[in-house]
Amino acid sequence: MEPIDILVTNGTVLTLDSCETLIEDGAVAVTGDSIADIGPASKFSACEVKTRIDANSGIIMPGLINTHTHAAMTCFRGLADDMDLMTWLNDYIFPAEAKLTNEKVYCGAMLACAEMILSGTTCFADMYLFEDAVAEAAKNAGMRAVVGEVLYDFPSPNYGTIENGFSYTSDLMVKWNDEPLITVAVEPHSPYLCAPDLLERAEAIAAKNNAPLIIHLAETISETDKIRSVYGKSPVAHLSNIGVLSPRLVACHCVVLSDEDISLLREKDVKVSHNPESNMKLAAGIAPVPRLLDAGVCVGLGTDGCTSNNNLDMFAEMDTAAKIHKVNCLDPTVMDAKTVVRMATIESARVLGLDQTTGSLEIGKKADLIVVDTQKPHMTPMYNIYSHLVYAAGGNDVSTVVINGRQVMQDSRLVSMDLEKVMADVNRIAETIRNG
Amino acid sequence: MEPIDILVTNGTVLTLDSCETLIEDGAVAVTGDSIADIGPASKFSACEVKTRIDANSGIIMPGLINTHTHAAMTCFRGLADDMDLMTWLNDYIFPAEAKLTNEKVYCGAMLACAEMILSGTTCFADMYLFEDAVAEAAKNAGMRAVVGEVLYDFPSPNYGTIENGFSYTSDLMVKWNDEPLITVAVEPHSPYLCAPDLLERAEAIAAKNNAPLIIHLAETISETDKIRSVYGKSPVAHLSNIGVLSPRLVACHCVVLSDEDISLLREKDVKVSHNPESNMKLAAGIAPVPRLLDAGVCVGLGTDGCTSNNNLDMFAEMDTAAKIHKVNCLDPTVMDAKTVVRMATIESARVLGLDQTTGSLEIGKKADLIVVDTQKPHMTPMYNIYSHLVYAAGGNDVSTVVINGRQVMQDSRLVSMDLEKVMADVNRIAETIRNG
Repeated sequence: MEPIDILVTNGTVLTLDSCETLIEDGAVAVTGDSIADIGPASKFSACEVKTRIDANSGIIMPGLINTHTHAAMTCFRGLADDMDLMTWLNDYIFPAEAKLTNEKVYCGAMLACAEMILSGTTCFADMYLFEDAVAEAAKNAGMRAVVGEVLYDFPSPNYGTIENGFSYTSDLMVKWNDEPLITVAVEPHSPYLCAPDLLERAEAIAAKNNAPLIIHLAETISETDKIRSVYGKSPVAHLSNIGVLSPRLVACHCVVLSDEDISLLREKDVKVSHNPESNMKLAAGIAPVPRLLDAGVCVGLGTDGCTSNNNLDMFAEMDTAAKIHKVNCLDPTVMDAKTVVRMATIESARVLGLDQTTGSLEIGKKADLIVVDTQKPHMTPMYNIYSHLVYAAGGNDVSTVVINGRQVMQDSRLVSMDLEKVMADVNRIAETIRNG
Repeated sequence: MEPIDILVTNGTVLTLDSCETLIEDGAVAVTGDSIADIGPASKFSACEVKTRIDANSGIIMPGLINTHTHAAMTCFRGLADDMDLMTWLNDYIFPAEAKLTNEKVYCGAMLACAEMILSGTTCFADMYLFEDAVAEAAKNAGMRAVVGEVLYDFPSPNYGTIENGFSYTSDLMVKWNDEPLITVAVEPHSPYLCAPDLLERAEAIAAKNNAPLIIHLAETISETDKIRSVYGKSPVAHLSNIGVLSPRLVACHCVVLSDEDISLLREKDVKVSHNPESNMKLAAGIAPVPRLLDAGVCVGLGTDGCTSNNNLDMFAEMDTAAKIHKVNCLDPTVMDAKTVVRMATIESARVLGLDQTTGSLEIGKKADLIVVDTQKPHMTPMYNIYSHLVYAAGGNDVSTVVINGRQVMQDSRLVSMDLEKVMADVNRIAETIRNG
C-alpha cells in the first residue's frame, strides 16, 4: 500500500456508497488527491501516516454538494428581504449587479467558499456573472466547483452581447481545462430570459464538450404562465420541443411541474436541483420532489444564492427538505432522513455529472470528506446517524474538511484562506452598495 | 446610580421594546437580577463595573423564549423519525415514557437546558411528566421556565390517577412559589385526552392562582375530526363552550382553525404557541399564523419537544416560521423578519404572561439577554439586523447568555453546569432505552 498522507480515524464512517456501508470505529486513508482505503480503524494502526485526523467519535462522511448557488451574492446578503420579487429584483438586485466587477465577484465568492467549507460543503455549482473570478476563488479556497457564466438575451454587465457570452464560456473551458477542482458548464439563465436559439446553441456547446447545461426551470407560476403564453407549452415541454432535455441538463427549482413534465424529465434523464429554502422565502411554491423521486428522477439539493436563503448551510437545507414535503403531502414518512442525506451527497454528485469523482467515500474517488462532531448537546444521544445529520445537526457541527486530498479546515478553522481579510473585503463592497 | 454588576457593551442593542429602539454602539447595564440602564456605550465609560462583557460589535438582544417544549424528550432524540404518528407514539414513545423516572427527566431536562442556553434561549415553557425535576433542572441550569405536569384522563407514569395529578400540580405551585426563575402552570394535555370536567377543573385552579393554562389545541386534522364527532364542535369552540378560553390560556399548535375559531381566540385574548418545525415534521399541517396576526391574536414561537424537531434551536425555528408562511400564502411579504424576531421574544413573553418580566431589554425588567456574534462569514455583510437574525444566524452564533442577571454562558461556553457530565448522563439513559 502507498504511504498514507491523511488518515481520518476514530469515527463512524458513513460512506454513502450503493450498499450504504457504515463502519463504526472506522477510518479513511487518503493518498494524494484520492481515497486509498476505507476500513476499521484497527486496520491502519501499524501504517505510516503523515497527518492523522482524530474524528473524536464523530461522523466521517462525504462532503455535501450544493447543486445550485450564486456564490458572489453574499455581497447582497440581507440587502432586501420580505418583498415582492419584482421590487426586489428591479429596485435592489439588478442595480447592484450592474455595478459588479471581476474583483467584487471574486471577493463575494471567496466569502461564499469560506461559509460553505465551514458548514461542510466541498463542492458547489455556480451560476453568475464574471464566473472566471468564481473559478479563481474556488481554486484558491480549495473547493470543487462547477462554474458557468449566466447567458441571457439582454446585455450582461460582464460580457455585453450574447455573442461574447458564448466566447466567454468557451474561454472558461479552455482556461480551466486542466484544473482538477473546476468543471465549466454552459448556463443559460431560464426559458423566460433566453430565446430558443440561445438555448439550442448553449445545448450544442454543452453537448460538444460533454459539459453540464444548467438552467433555472419552472421556478414560479408566473414563469410557467409566461412560457405557456409565448410558446403554448410548459417550460419543460418547451425545452423538450427544442431538444434541450438531456442527462447533462441540470434543471434548478422545478417547482411548477405537471405529470407530463415529470415524465419528460424522467424519460430524458434530466437532473433536478431542489432548492426548498429559496422556494419558500421567495414564495415560489413547493417542488413535487416526492413525485419526482417516485418517478425515478435524480434530484440533488441546493441552497440557491444567499439573497434568497440567506445562508449557504446545506445542513439547514437538508432539514427543510425533509420537513417541507412531509407537511405538503401530510405524510410524515416521505423524504426520510436517509433519502435526504443521499440527496445532499451522492445524488447531488450525480446531478452535476461528478458521481465518479465525489459524493461518496469509495476507494479511488477523490478525497472530499468532512467530519461532523457529535459530542454536542443537540447531537446527544445518538440513535440514528441519518436522523441526526438531517434533523439535529447544523453546518457549525463540521470540524474538519478535506477536499481533493487537501485539508482546508482543521479544528473548525479555515486553513485555505485569510478569513479576516475575506470578510473585510466584502464589508468594504457592502459599504459602496449602501451608499448607492 | 447603583454599581453595575455586568455591563454588556460594544454592540448594537436591539431592545425589542414597543418603540423598536435600536442603539448602535450601545450597552446594557445589569444590577442584581435586573436591567439598570441601557444607552450608548459612551454613557458608561466612567462607571464602575464588576464584569464587563465585550459584544465584539455583535448584537445585544433579549434572550429567545421557547413557548412550548417537552425538555426531557432529549432522551429520545432521533429514536424514531419519519414514521406514522401512531406507530411513533405506540411503538416507541409511550413504551419509553412508561419507564421514565424523576432522575431520567432531570437528566433529559438538564441536557435540554444546555442546548437551549447554548443557542440563545433564556426561558422555556415545558409540559411533561415529573415536572418537579424539570423545575429543578431549570433552576440549576439558571434558566427561566414555566413548568407544568401534564394532565390527562388515563393514569400517568408519574402520579397515577388524575386526582394525584391535581395535587402534584398544587404541590409544585407551593414548592416553587418563591423561586424567581420558575412559574408553575396548569397543563391539561389536550381536549382529546382530557374530558370536559378535567379541563374545567384545571382552568379553575389556573384562574384561582392566576397561572397559565397550557394545552395542545387543534394540532391535527384527526384531532379536530375526533373532537367534532364527540362534542359536535371544533376543539376551540368546544373549549369555549366549557369556559376554558381566557387570556391565560396558551394554546399550542393551533394548526386546524376555522375563521370562527380565530374570532373566538381573539375575542377571549387566548395566546397561541406556534411550532412550525414540529408541525412540518409530523405532517400535522401549517398553522394559519398570518391570519391569526391579522386578527390581532398574540402568537409566540416554540420548538416542541426535540423528538419532533429534532433540536431546540429557536433561531432555526424563526427561519422556518418566516419561510413556511411565505410559501403557504404564495406571498413573500408575510411574516417579515421583524415580526418573527418579535414573535420569538416579546410576543413569546406575552404568551406566557411574562412580558413585564422578560422578552425585551427595558430598564427594570429582569436581565435576560444574549449576545449574537456577527463576525462570521454567514453573517457578513450586515445590511439588516432582523434579516440576519432570522435568515442567516443559527443558535451557534450566540456567544454570551445572561439570565436573571447571572451570566450562564461565556465565550460560547456554559458556566452553569458540567456539560460533559450532563451529556454522559443522557447517553447512559439512552443505552437503557436501546436495550429495551
